[in-house]
Parts: sequence; structure tokens; C-alpha cells
Amino acid sequence: MEKYKEFFQTDRFAMNAGVELLKVEAGYAQARMLVTKEHLNAGGVCQGGALFTLADLAFAAVANSHGQLTLSVNANINFIRSVKEGYVYAEAQEMVNHHRLPFIEVCLKDEAGELVAIMTSSGYRKDKKLF
Amino acid sequence: MEKYKEFFQTDRFAMNAGVELLKVEAGYAQARMLVTKEHLNAGGVCQGGALFTLADLAFAAVANSHGQLTLSVNANINFIRSVKEGYVYAEAQEMVNHHRLPFIEVCLKDEAGELVAIMTSSGYRKDKKLF
Amino acid sequence: MEKYKEFFQTDRFAMNAGVELLKVEAGYAQARMLVTKEHLNAGGVCQGGALFTLADLAFAAVANSHGQLTLSVNANINFIRSVKEGYVYAEAQEMVNHHRLPFIEVCLKDEAGELVAIMTSSGYRKDKKLF
Amino acid sequence: MEKYKEFFQTDRFAMNAGVELLKVEAGYAQARMLVTKEHLNAGGVCQGGALFTLADLAFAAVANSHGQLTLSVNANINFIRSVKEGYVYAEAQEMVNHHRLPFIEVCLKDEAGELVAIMTSSGYRKDKKLF
Repeated sequence: MEKYKEFFQTDRFAMNAGVELLKVEAGYAQARMLVTKEHLNAGGVCQGGALFTLADLAFAAVANSHGQLTLSVNANINFIRSVKEGYVYAEAQEMVNHHRLPFIEVCLKDEAGELVAIMTSSGYRKDKKLF
Repeated sequence: MEKYKEFFQTDRFAMNAGVELLKVEAGYAQARMLVTKEHLNAGGVCQGGALFTLADLAFAAVANSHGQLTLSVNANINFIRSVKEGYVYAEAQEMVNHHRLPFIEVCLKDEAGELVAIMTSSGYRKDKKLF
Repeated sequence: MEKYKEFFQTDRFAMNAGVELLKVEAGYAQARMLVTKEHLNAGGVCQGGALFTLADLAFAAVANSHGQLTLSVNANINFIRSVKEGYVYAEAQEMVNHHRLPFIEVCLKDEAGELVAIMTSSGYRKDKKLF
Repeated sequence: MEKYKEFFQTDRFAMNAGVELLKVEAGYAQARMLVTKEHLNAGGVCQGGALFTLADLAFAAVANSHGQLTLSVNANINFIRSVKEGYVYAEAQEMVNHHRLPFIEVCLKDEAGELVAIMTSSGYRKDKKLF
């Protein structure tokens, strides 16, 4: 767990966006991001790219949680509710732990537990070990 | 055009990520982002969320290019080639100019003109005018 | 429930494919399809379009389960395990019951309970009542 | 070309749906399907699964057009215009000819040339040759 946290702390873009990795287990991860004025888009709500960045870090934590380097091939995100401030929590679950093509779902919720976005994403496992 | 540029310059998250809107016409937009060390993920390549942010701004420029406020409902992104530095260019085209549910495709290319990612995204037009 | 079953029995394409609607409640539905030689593709496994048809009927049952006419705008399907024969079961759940843009997830499983495919789909609710 | 046509004529589900493969080149394919009463859903328009089946065959023709067996991992389809009768034409283009993870876009149009649906799909190339 600690080595995963250290590894993902080198994700400069996610760290700049304020993403914090809270938990990593085999096939499961939690992360969160505090939405501030720096995350808002021209419409005054949290930018889709900020939510995607949070979801992507949680995806990457799960995808790599078996120790094998895994990239994102494809991601599909549905925006359900807009957020203006406060924490957004990401919970990522590996639906399919395939040796080549894992499939992961990430739910984003606000502080009240309401669904903000759902992302599903396919990964591609390389032959290389993560550590 | 100028009022669109001004409007999207209030997108704090995209501006913080270095996204520049280059062109907006009815149904078409161009944007770019200079990938620096601040955009990299733990694997040392441009984070998916950074690419998504660039694509999302280009989507928003096209989706709103008819003057009616339009939100993103759903986005699907395929990551094709990783980028470590230099400009990534986004070209967004409205495939369907529907009064409620427009559909937009965004191609991201690197400086050599090679495809980096493709995003397709469905919008939802509100009754509200943009300006 | 009975009127929904009757309504969807007029879906000629799904009926020709052997899809049976098993259950409809507000926000939830079950369906199944018996995979035979008539469902196979050139690779000898159940065609993606056949699985999609099953998932789409389950989506439609849930999307319309509140009595308001709802269309499919976008669907994203991940193919996880191939099937050659036997029943495939679909379980569809409304993740978001939005008055305009509901969001539904459909899980397809084989007779052993193993995941075959996952579809997520956004609907668009019209002002028209279903019955 | 002829061997591809023969190969895909063994796709029972697509043939039962009336799909015809018109052309296959490296990275490109065309197909069509005549929409009849047998293709309609409960709303009286061509079922999403029928359109998906047409798009999937065109995808498969392109994905396999380099002679290496390729499966569909993920497909994203946007439904743009409903069709009640007449031919729907599919044009499939390989956007990325990757040795493992090709990416293909399929446009479906009606007889008037209007866009009916767009599908984007990621494939996975196996080590096995097609013929």
C-alpha cells in the first residue's frame, strides 16, 4: 500500500489537481479531491477534466494493484450532477481482472453521497512489473 | 469569436492546465496545450486527465458555438499514443447539431500530426442563452 | 408489469433474437436470451449485436419503467467473455433516474453467473407518456 | 476480398439480420442492411441492436482486414436519427492500426446520406492468423 501511495505521488498532474489516494487493495481503491475555485469551468462548476483526473488516478491505482504495469486504453464517463465545492470521493472497483484487458468502474460521489459521475475504463496490461 | 475566448478564459481548471483556445466557429473549434513536467503521470507520460481537459474545452467551445448553453452528458475517450512533451492540438467538430443532443468529435494530435487520443461526446442543450 | 411485457413483445428484432423479458419494476429489469447456432458470428461465438440486442431490451424496459417514453442516446458496451451456447441473463439497473437524462447499467451473465458484458447507456426522456 | 466475404457469410446472426458486406480493403470496409418490419422495436423504429449488428460486422471486417484475428473489446455507439425502412449503409475506417489495440470508427447513414449512428470500437489482436 505505502509503495503505491509513493508511486502515485509522482503523478504531477493529479497531485497539482489536489487528488489524494486514500486506499489501495488488490482490485479496489479510494481517492478524493477537494473542489476549489481552481477546479471550476466557465459555467462555474467543477470542470469535467478535473473529475476525470480524480477518476483516472483511482482507475490507475486499481489497474496496477496486482503489480503489473497497466495502461488506460479507453474510458467512458457520464456526468450526472455538477459540483461547486467540497470533496468528491472516488471508489474504483475492478469488475474484470483479466491478465491483458482488465475492466474497472469508478464511482464519484459528493460529500452528501450523491453520484457525481461514473467512469468505466478498459486497461491494457504490459509484461513489465510495476516495482 | 472574441467573446467565446473571453468566456472560456474563465475556465480556471483548463487555464491552469495551460489550455489555449485558438479558434471557434459555428460547429468547429481548435485548442492546444503545451505538455510540461507538470502534466505527467506516475508513468512519466501526459496524464489522461490533462488530455481530457484539453479535449473537454474544445468540446465545450463547439457545443456552445451556437450561443445556447450546452453541458456534457457523456464522453468516451480512446488513448492512442502517449506524449511526454510539446504541444498537443485539439480539433473539435460537431457531427450532429441537434437542438437538444448535439454530438461532437475531438481529435488530439501531437506536433508531428500523429493521433494522440479521440474523444466523442454527447451534449445537452439547455434553454438558456450563453451570452 | 404485464403491460410492459406486452409492449416489449412488439419489439420484433429482439423477439426474433429470442429475447425474453422476465421482470420489470420501477428502475429495474431482467431479461434473458438463449444462445443458439443462429446467434454465432464468423468466429463461432455469440455475435456482439446479439448481446447488444439483449442488453438494449433490458435498458429499454428500465428506461421506460416510470411510464415516460425514453430513447437511447448513447451506449457503451464492454465484451468480457465469449459465449457459445446456453442462456445469457441481463440485469438492468437505473443508476440515475433523471427527468430528462437517465443513466442505466446492464450486466450480462452466463449460466454459471460469470460476467459476459457490461453496457452503460444514457437515455433521453420525451414528454410523451408510454401508455 | 472474396475470402473475407466468404468468412463473414458464416456470421449467422448478422446474415439473419440481413447484413451484406459490400467491400473490404486493408483498414476500410462497407456494409449495408435493409431495414424491414422485422428490424423494428416496440417504438416502431429500427432496434438499436440491429444497427449495432450492422456496425459490428463492418468493424469486424476492418479489424480483421490485415489477416490477424481481432476481437472487439469495447464499443461506444451514439444513436442520432431513427430509421423505419430502407437501406442503412455502414462505412468503417481504421483510425489506428496498432499491432495489439486497433481503433475503428463506423458511420451509419440512411439512403438520404443522413447520419443514423456513429460507433467507435477498440479491438484486440490475437497472435492467430485469420486464414
